[in-house]
Amino acid sequence: MPKRVVLAYSGGLDTSVAVRWMIEELGVEVVCLAVDVGQASDDWDVVRERARAAGAVEAIVVDARQEFAEDFVAPALKANAMYEGRYPLVSALSRPVIVKHLVETARYHGADAVAHGCTGKGNDQVRFEVSTRALAPDLEVIAPVRGWGMTREESILYAYDHGIPIQATKEKVYSIDDNLWGRAIECGEMEDPWAVPPPGVWLLTEQTESEPRDLVIGFEQGVPTSVDGERLGMLEVIERLNTVVGSYGWGRIDMVENRRVGIKSRETYECPAALALIMAHKDLESICLERDLDREKSRTEPRYAELIYDGLWFSPLKQAFDAFIDSSQEFVTGEVRLRLSPGSAAITGRRSEHSLYDYGLATYDAADSFRHEDSAGFVRLWGLGIETWAARQGTDRIRD
Amino acid sequence: MPKRVVLAYSGGLDTSVAVRWMIEELGVEVVCLAVDVGQASDDWDVVRERARAAGAVEAIVVDARQEFAEDFVAPALKANAMYEGRYPLVSALSRPVIVKHLVETARYHGADAVAHGCTGKGNDQVRFEVSTRALAPDLEVIAPVRGWGMTREESILYAYDHGIPIQATKEKVYSIDDNLWGRAIECGEMEDPWAVPPPGVWLLTEQTESEPRDLVIGFEQGVPTSVDGERLGMLEVIERLNTVVGSYGWGRIDMVENRRVGIKSRETYECPAALALIMAHKDLESICLERDLDREKSRTEPRYAELIYDGLWFSPLKQAFDAFIDSSQEFVTGEVRLRLSPGSAAITGRRSEHSLYDYGLATYDAADSFRHEDSAGFVRLWGLGIETWAARQGTDRIRD
Amino acid sequence: MPKRVVLAYSGGLDTSVAVRWMIEELGVEVVCLAVDVGQASDDWDVVRERARAAGAVEAIVVDARQEFAEDFVAPALKANAMYEGRYPLVSALSRPVIVKHLVETARYHGADAVAHGCTGKGNDQVRFEVSTRALAPDLEVIAPVRGWGMTREESILYAYDHGIPIQATKEKVYSIDDNLWGRAIECGEMEDPWAVPPPGVWLLTEQTESEPRDLVIGFEQGVPTSVDGERLGMLEVIERLNTVVGSYGWGRIDMVENRRVGIKSRETYECPAALALIMAHKDLESICLERDLDREKSRTEPRYAELIYDGLWFSPLKQAFDAFIDSSQEFVTGEVRLRLSPGSAAITGRRSEHSLYDYGLATYDAADSFRHEDSAGFVRLWGLGIETWAARQGTDRIRD
Amino acid sequence: MPKRVVLAYSGGLDTSVAVRWMIEELGVEVVCLAVDVGQASDDWDVVRERARAAGAVEAIVVDARQEFAEDFVAPALKANAMYEGRYPLVSALSRPVIVKHLVETARYHGADAVAHGCTGKGNDQVRFEVSTRALAPDLEVIAPVRGWGMTREESILYAYDHGIPIQATKEKVYSIDDNLWGRAIECGEMEDPWAVPPPGVWLLTEQTESEPRDLVIGFEQGVPTSVDGERLGMLEVIERLNTVVGSYGWGRIDMVENRRVGIKSRETYECPAALALIMAHKDLESICLERDLDREKSRTEPRYAELIYDGLWFSPLKQAFDAFIDSSQEFVTGEVRLRLSPGSAAITGRRSEHSLYDYGLATYDAADSFRHEDSAGFVRLWGLGIETWAARQGTDRIRD
Repeated sequence: MPKRVVLAYSGGLDTSVAVRWMIEELGVEVVCLAVDVGQASDDWDVVRERARAAGAVEAIVVDARQEFAEDFVAPALKANAMYEGRYPLVSALSRPVIVKHLVETARYHGADAVAHGCTGKGNDQVRFEVSTRALAPDLEVIAPVRGWGMTREESILYAYDHGIPIQATKEKVYSIDDNLWGRAIECGEMEDPWAVPPPGVWLLTEQTESEPRDLVIGFEQGVPTSVDGERLGMLEVIERLNTVVGSYGWGRIDMVENRRVGIKSRETYECPAALALIMAHKDLESICLERDLDREKSRTEPRYAELIYDGLWFSPLKQAFDAFIDSSQEFVTGEVRLRLSPGSAAITGRRSEHSLYDYGLATYDAADSFRHEDSAGFVRLWGLGIETWAARQGTDRIRD
Repeated sequence: MPKRVVLAYSGGLDTSVAVRWMIEELGVEVVCLAVDVGQASDDWDVVRERARAAGAVEAIVVDARQEFAEDFVAPALKANAMYEGRYPLVSALSRPVIVKHLVETARYHGADAVAHGCTGKGNDQVRFEVSTRALAPDLEVIAPVRGWGMTREESILYAYDHGIPIQATKEKVYSIDDNLWGRAIECGEMEDPWAVPPPGVWLLTEQTESEPRDLVIGFEQGVPTSVDGERLGMLEVIERLNTVVGSYGWGRIDMVENRRVGIKSRETYECPAALALIMAHKDLESICLERDLDREKSRTEPRYAELIYDGLWFSPLKQAFDAFIDSSQEFVTGEVRLRLSPGSAAITGRRSEHSLYDYGLATYDAADSFRHEDSAGFVRLWGLGIETWAARQGTDRIRD
Repeated sequence: MPKRVVLAYSGGLDTSVAVRWMIEELGVEVVCLAVDVGQASDDWDVVRERARAAGAVEAIVVDARQEFAEDFVAPALKANAMYEGRYPLVSALSRPVIVKHLVETARYHGADAVAHGCTGKGNDQVRFEVSTRALAPDLEVIAPVRGWGMTREESILYAYDHGIPIQATKEKVYSIDDNLWGRAIECGEMEDPWAVPPPGVWLLTEQTESEPRDLVIGFEQGVPTSVDGERLGMLEVIERLNTVVGSYGWGRIDMVENRRVGIKSRETYECPAALALIMAHKDLESICLERDLDREKSRTEPRYAELIYDGLWFSPLKQAFDAFIDSSQEFVTGEVRLRLSPGSAAITGRRSEHSLYDYGLATYDAADSFRHEDSAGFVRLWGLGIETWAARQGTDRIRD
Repeated sequence: MPKRVVLAYSGGLDTSVAVRWMIEELGVEVVCLAVDVGQASDDWDVVRERARAAGAVEAIVVDARQEFAEDFVAPALKANAMYEGRYPLVSALSRPVIVKHLVETARYHGADAVAHGCTGKGNDQVRFEVSTRALAPDLEVIAPVRGWGMTREESILYAYDHGIPIQATKEKVYSIDDNLWGRAIECGEMEDPWAVPPPGVWLLTEQTESEPRDLVIGFEQGVPTSVDGERLGMLEVIERLNTVVGSYGWGRIDMVENRRVGIKSRETYECPAALALIMAHKDLESICLERDLDREKSRTEPRYAELIYDGLWFSPLKQAFDAFIDSSQEFVTGEVRLRLSPGSAAITGRRSEHSLYDYGLATYDAADSFRHEDSAGFVRLWGLGIETWAARQGTDRIRD
């Protein structure tokens, strides 16, 4: 039985109750760790106090925004990581950085277990637990919320009975998880996949700008380094784009996705910076990556996104993919122009000093350097296998 | 040497000159065939006359719109076919149906060759020639434009000298190829991938509507069969959506793509119906396809699109893919709601009688039927391989 | 709580004990079903008697050999299904046919549950349970052996105490699972992956022939239909080849494989017919399948094998794969010659009336019909993208 | 027009005639370069003299065996590179190293072109030309044999008329290309894919040993470094295994393969060392690679082999693949035991200090550390998606 546990603490109802519940039921000491990955509105002092009030022996807050942006979001962007082609892995990306700090804190405070507040039907339990195993196979992982079987109402009463201060919300309509890379919103109403998301869902992508404008994003080796010519760090680029792109009401996702545990769930996300950056990055790759490399990279991207979604950030396949991707990004340096207008973001140009677009080959004007006479032979051999097939087996064949 | 040739005739300068050039240089009889695949503005009587004036022994126009929509576009839609993830294969899809009629006409008129007006650096030569080989390995394929080496100016003079009536255009700025499924636009100015496309490029997607509206598209086994409850054929659905969706200024593509002949080229397309239908179809699949099937289908879609792009519509791999895809579409029946507003089209709901979305499993409310206690074991075994790896090889491991 | 259970019964210790254990502990009636899929040595009358002695209300034996060969093995052969490139899925293939009969028997006898004798760390529990869910989501699945926690010794004592007749084996060294398609052998000694398998492991592949001989296998649409010109059913072909090929001491597999539950295990198999047929089938495909189709099929084969291994025979992805594969097999008709000699089986020739091998194109002699002049253009365009890359980015470039 | 050409010279008829032909027809100076990549029987002094006799201004021989083994064969082995699953890329692997020396020699001798003796229907022209473009886009590539259109008889007469000394072979039955990694044999008789290869085809794999023996191959990070405990370089390992494994008559390949130019050709190869090393390496990976990594690596291996076959050794995709593969090989260190007997080579054991095989998890004996109770939940969630599918769509469902 563990003696000391580090809990991934959010300041919300479930993790606050979990502190006391673990003390009472498991007889452990609880260290609370809150990790700042760019959540919108947290007052970390309040979070700290609430942890102590719930009974934590320590209440720690770590600012991991820079690290999250550079070591977790940037690799995902280089991989254009979108789960099922649409979701830029907002929550999924933050879990490994949280677990990293969880384990470091456990090591520092001599804890023999970590804990999280996830339920049994979500993806996050997988991410917390598998990441912990990868970083510290010897640590126990405790999932009090999954095990205790309390309803929401029972949890509130438990908090009341044990004097745990929780925020009074008449009716908490939305369940939110957010960070730098975007915002995931769930609510009961949207559990019907046919229901239109209510307007209150959207926060980052409220349209406030009506005047179209251009935005030029600069990349170096696959990572954004400037906006409109101004040199910025990864974290600053994301913050800037969330604000600017979001103000045009663009960056929303409404989808039904496959969770790891075998169920489909309807999800809404807002990710203006993430979607704009991935779109721009992919577009820049179209002139900087040789065709076969581009094609193979595109083929591996969905698998890479799956890995992250499935909690396998810390895994040998992820490491090998990163080696592949880093090799591919050597010349992904240049600029992409984005046209923003209400409800819309579209690319209108891209350039790079390493561009493989060759004007002389592509143009139809006098500068044409393409050897047209090569094409006859090329086309003939390109089609030779099909010609043989058609003669011997061709089921489409139109006979004389 | 062939005696009689069927030429894929468009009524434009190149193919008009080609008629006379083949008569003069190759000593053949030329049958002109124009195939209506939904080009915007063609006056087919004029096209016919022009062919005869150029010297054709026959000038035939075939209305292939219905066939194109049902036998060529519909399979591509079921496959969500987008070349390099973005281009819905407008021109590429029309080539096989044109070639089919070309070969049938050659058979009917006893021709021993077919001809096309493609140049040496595009993709269409590949599509025309390989498709012809597949349908009729015995027919010769002639590519006069690729071979003659005339500049645009020389072609015009040739037409003048030989009394070929061509349309007087002071300066033909844009080179257009269009059909039901969309419109491809090229112009010299846009050969620089950094240049913003001039406004004159866009025709189908001029924004004229400003009032947002919803649109409900119904599908049966992967094929659209209704719009807002009104039962429509495939051709009508496409025409309707081109008009309605296009009027919101949505449906544009600006990209650099890899041509089959080894060069990158910058392309702009307008495809309001195609993009809306693919988006809606894919979304409906998210509730109708079981996860592994959806994932494998997504993996094959880029290859399917490549096949079409590369001129391999008539090929055994295409046939086998279609068998796979048709099997996958058995339950892709239902409705998708699209929200249109200026510059934007977004899905806000989907439903199906065969939906695999299970409210009881997905909900967090009292109706929850998910067995949370299963998760602990699942997560443990899901991560067991990584746990072993971490203990033996784990390079990320954080040690005590 | 279920009232009546159909148990997949083998006649061995575990399932015999399970009969009585379920009666005692769960208070159910047990129907025993043994499915003959070609196990080497079972005396089915003895099996039946033993089931009744253990307490079964019914003891049924079904001969499913023909069905197994034609409906389960043949599709796998068309897919060249080999898990991790080596294991032809002996046990994995038999589970779905057993489950099919289990469910049919449950329906016929009005049972509300089925049961199997698998432990918790193998793959078979996954196959039994997921297949049952696919065929009958309403039936409960009971896994007594996984749950009861008895050691082997305790099981033997339980059998003795309850008067269950079990075969007296001084020491059961090997744990065997076998059927038409091969034989899986486990033993404690081989749990060390470095240990040489003891000679007693091999039964089907004992070398008794020393005189080399040829064997010609005929296929129609991907399925074997003759051996040395003699027309045979699928079941007969397999039986014939197990005997003939096995007698040359060929057909053994010694590997470490990844189980579904997250562990690696060392396995030995003997599958002379399976390995010979897959090798011959794949070879025939090399002349009957067009290149792109062959390549794509090869790419899907490992995934197909995984599906079967992972218990997903009854699944929509499996159905879609079969549609793809059946389309590919239309022209896989012809003959393959196999040279057998002690320790070796090798292909020395293949022919087909639909062969895509074209002597005129392939030969270097006077009959050569290949247009060599096409190659210059082909090679130039084939390398054009790399040439552009080398000029702009080429890191390997050797400069002047 | 080029002035000085470096020719990849073999000493055979075609390249000898090519020297004089280029001098006469193109008016160039010819530098002959022969690259030793481990051809069986070449007397390099004779080759040098023959080049000079044919008219070369320089005749150079480079010993590239070590470099070939370490920089070209080793990466291919780490990738288990087998074209179409069977051919270990003997000739294909040697072309890039030859081209590398060709270009370096061209740079050193101030040549403005390189030349090769390939015909128009093989793969080697693609490899020579694309590799040259990648290393030196500015150099011209000349393919005299492809262009001149002489039959074999005309070439012999040309040599006679121009006093070029060629080896007198009454009848050159076999066309051989060989190097360290194996031997490719073609002959007219085998152009019929049904014909049994004549015994004279085999040289490296003549069976001379009859006494079975074991062989232990040691690997470090995916590269072989010892045989039977004796530390050896890559080149020595290959030479040793060619001799030892070959002496058991094992290592032959008889296949029909798809050439890049669109034709199928029947090929025979002998590669005892290559096949043994790939088999051993892959087997070692089965205990050293985590499942998902192993699976993804297996998925990319065929593509890697295709790249090499298609002449794309020097390409950005190859570089990115190598980064992926090198990452995967970090822990592929250990030993594999090979059992050799006449006609057969089989693996009977593998071990590694980094092995992911976990006895405690895999064993069925008392040391079992697997938590069997986790399986119930795992299997239930593993099958949950299929259960939902079966209830809603399940076409296999067996109803009550």
